[in-house]
Amino acid sequence: MTPPWKPPFISLLTDFGLQDHFAGVMKGVIATITPQAKVIDISHDVEACQLTQARFLLGQSWPFFPPGTVHVCVVDPGVGTSRRAILVEAAGHRFVGPDNGLFTDLLDLPKASVRSLDKPKYWLKNISQTFHGRDIFSPVAAHLARGVRPALLGSRIQDPVRLASLQPGRLGRRLWQGVVLHVDRFGNLITNLAPPAGGVALRIGLRELVGTVANYAAAPPGEPVILAGSHGYLEVAVNQGSAARTLGCGVGSPVEMEILP
Amino acid sequence: MTPPWKPPFISLLTDFGLQDHFAGVMKGVIATITPQAKVIDISHDVEACQLTQARFLLGQSWPFFPPGTVHVCVVDPGVGTSRRAILVEAAGHRFVGPDNGLFTDLLDLPKASVRSLDKPKYWLKNISQTFHGRDIFSPVAAHLARGVRPALLGSRIQDPVRLASLQPGRLGRRLWQGVVLHVDRFGNLITNLAPPAGGVALRIGLRELVGTVANYAAAPPGEPVILAGSHGYLEVAVNQGSAARTLGCGVGSPVEMEILP
Amino acid sequence: MTPPWKPPFISLLTDFGLQDHFAGVMKGVIATITPQAKVIDISHDVEACQLTQARFLLGQSWPFFPPGTVHVCVVDPGVGTSRRAILVEAAGHRFVGPDNGLFTDLLDLPKASVRSLDKPKYWLKNISQTFHGRDIFSPVAAHLARGVRPALLGSRIQDPVRLASLQPGRLGRRLWQGVVLHVDRFGNLITNLAPPAGGVALRIGLRELVGTVANYAAAPPGEPVILAGSHGYLEVAVNQGSAARTLGCGVGSPVEMEILP
Repeated sequence: MTPPWKPPFISLLTDFGLQDHFAGVMKGVIATITPQAKVIDISHDVEACQLTQARFLLGQSWPFFPPGTVHVCVVDPGVGTSRRAILVEAAGHRFVGPDNGLFTDLLDLPKASVRSLDKPKYWLKNISQTFHGRDIFSPVAAHLARGVRPALLGSRIQDPVRLASLQPGRLGRRLWQGVVLHVDRFGNLITNLAPPAGGVALRIGLRELVGTVANYAAAPPGEPVILAGSHGYLEVAVNQGSAARTLGCGVGSPVEMEILP
Repeated sequence: MTPPWKPPFISLLTDFGLQDHFAGVMKGVIATITPQAKVIDISHDVEACQLTQARFLLGQSWPFFPPGTVHVCVVDPGVGTSRRAILVEAAGHRFVGPDNGLFTDLLDLPKASVRSLDKPKYWLKNISQTFHGRDIFSPVAAHLARGVRPALLGSRIQDPVRLASLQPGRLGRRLWQGVVLHVDRFGNLITNLAPPAGGVALRIGLRELVGTVANYAAAPPGEPVILAGSHGYLEVAVNQGSAARTLGCGVGSPVEMEILP
Repeated sequence: MTPPWKPPFISLLTDFGLQDHFAGVMKGVIATITPQAKVIDISHDVEACQLTQARFLLGQSWPFFPPGTVHVCVVDPGVGTSRRAILVEAAGHRFVGPDNGLFTDLLDLPKASVRSLDKPKYWLKNISQTFHGRDIFSPVAAHLARGVRPALLGSRIQDPVRLASLQPGRLGRRLWQGVVLHVDRFGNLITNLAPPAGGVALRIGLRELVGTVANYAAAPPGEPVILAGSHGYLEVAVNQGSAARTLGCGVGSPVEMEILP
């Protein structure tokens, strides 16, 4: 039997945690405005105020959502200051959140455009100084999901905040300087280095690792190995262990990559 | 395109955690009875048996949900004893849970009424001694959500359990005795003290704090400050730090408020 | 008002945690293929690679979901190796995951049948070596949920991996050897021992406990007691405390049960 109607989707990515009521209240606000919207949590456990990690998680997630999805991202150390709230449209998706560089990586996508969310008509009536996820971002996302045109929500701007690129730096013909972008639940260290054609060596922590393995199970237990992870980047893993603990590394740790001849 | 139908909403607030299957099983039970219901988690991480924290989180959340929402709250140290299961109707919302004082703050709302859930016809067939969230509260909520009239689910009662008020006590003309109701993920201490008109000083931990700031970013890093939080109460925060750790305070810690002339 | 259409349900049980984007991305993939599907989390906090705990949680959960639900279970230490991906149909439910014994307990249910998921047409285009939850299991579940016939997704097999039974061993006429299957959030120790008719004694840790209590509140605070838990098994609990900590036991700890005359 064919379903009669396609629901709009909204994703949430925040540093609010799940212990408090914050994420639930955002969903209550959305349900009140657009009961048909379906809300999907990407994560609420971004480390507090960690924009780099948030950019990584967002970049890994949004391409797997239906076109048209509204992605609400709230990692927002400047809440309550004069920092703007923005809507980015890019690649057929919509992104709502603070103008602090969270959306840097989307700004060069085809047909990217940015609006400043400056129409309080589409916010909650009372705006707190500390919870714009509830008061501004969720209502705007819900209105977008029910079909309100972006032009009604805010005016075009050309100067959104841009942070530095997450791309690795080139040190030499075969040498790149990278960084750990994310540590996942299993302690795997995800870098910003794309797997090169040919052999590879990584220097990370006090170790040099040479050559990749095909999957976690192919690694000897306890031994750090390199693999081409599901994220499209090289990651360092320890089979049935934690690479983060074994190597003493975390988000921000430097990684040097040498492409072997 | 207009959606054809408004789904009923059910919210969940428990101390079951997310590590076990408890919340998922409640949703399975609801889905079986009322497949159209949309379930939203407020939190499953209330501290075990902490009724004060649960009352705070519920009070902060339910007003942001659509009218008619059924809120299922299970913080239930007395499960399996003779404590009653109740349905509270108030302010156009419905609340289902144990009769242990969780719903104290709703009982004085306009048109509040209470029923004892005493009709096993609307429960699961087998009732365990320890998981009424699955066996009684979820099925009753699902039946409410699909339109079963409250009168069929239980008989009116006049004597639900009431706990002490969460309001602060008055110590003098300008002096109030309050308490920390909740510590959020960021370590902010949320009190039960409403922001007064005019200046304010708080004595908390071994510190006296004077004057409020407008937002987190306006505070010098590391320094505890007072602000009017998104909850409608004064909270104590440390910019990019934890007020709970800095001041050595937690849920239940006393706070004295002086209104400055 | 009668809803027009019954949505298909998909449940998720993984060891991916909620801190990363893994569960959210699985839901994005499902939403893209079958927007009408409703996804319910059973748990994402299975201990990494703990198949016994996953089998317990799955067995406790699936019977409470609507018939037809697709249960996606990803606890998968062998991801990227030649281990097969399978679909188990049993008791009117469908189960999708790795062929590593996770589904052992379903294979003897009435009308159980198993297929090897070997039709890449129903997977994502690019298959990573490490995230089959996103690339294979979620898309297959979504296609099942929208009505694709199992025969199109893979060929029947007769030799799925089977692990040892979770049933207790018999030591004597009145004596059984059991094990702790799960420790819940409250520190309750859930065994694999069904409550016998008549009296019971358990030897666990260095203690012998005699006789059951009816519910948590009936136990003296601090004292370990036996009760017939909501899972259908004997569990050991400490009222307002943790039996796991009090007895120094965890998943896998041995429990001897004597049925008293």
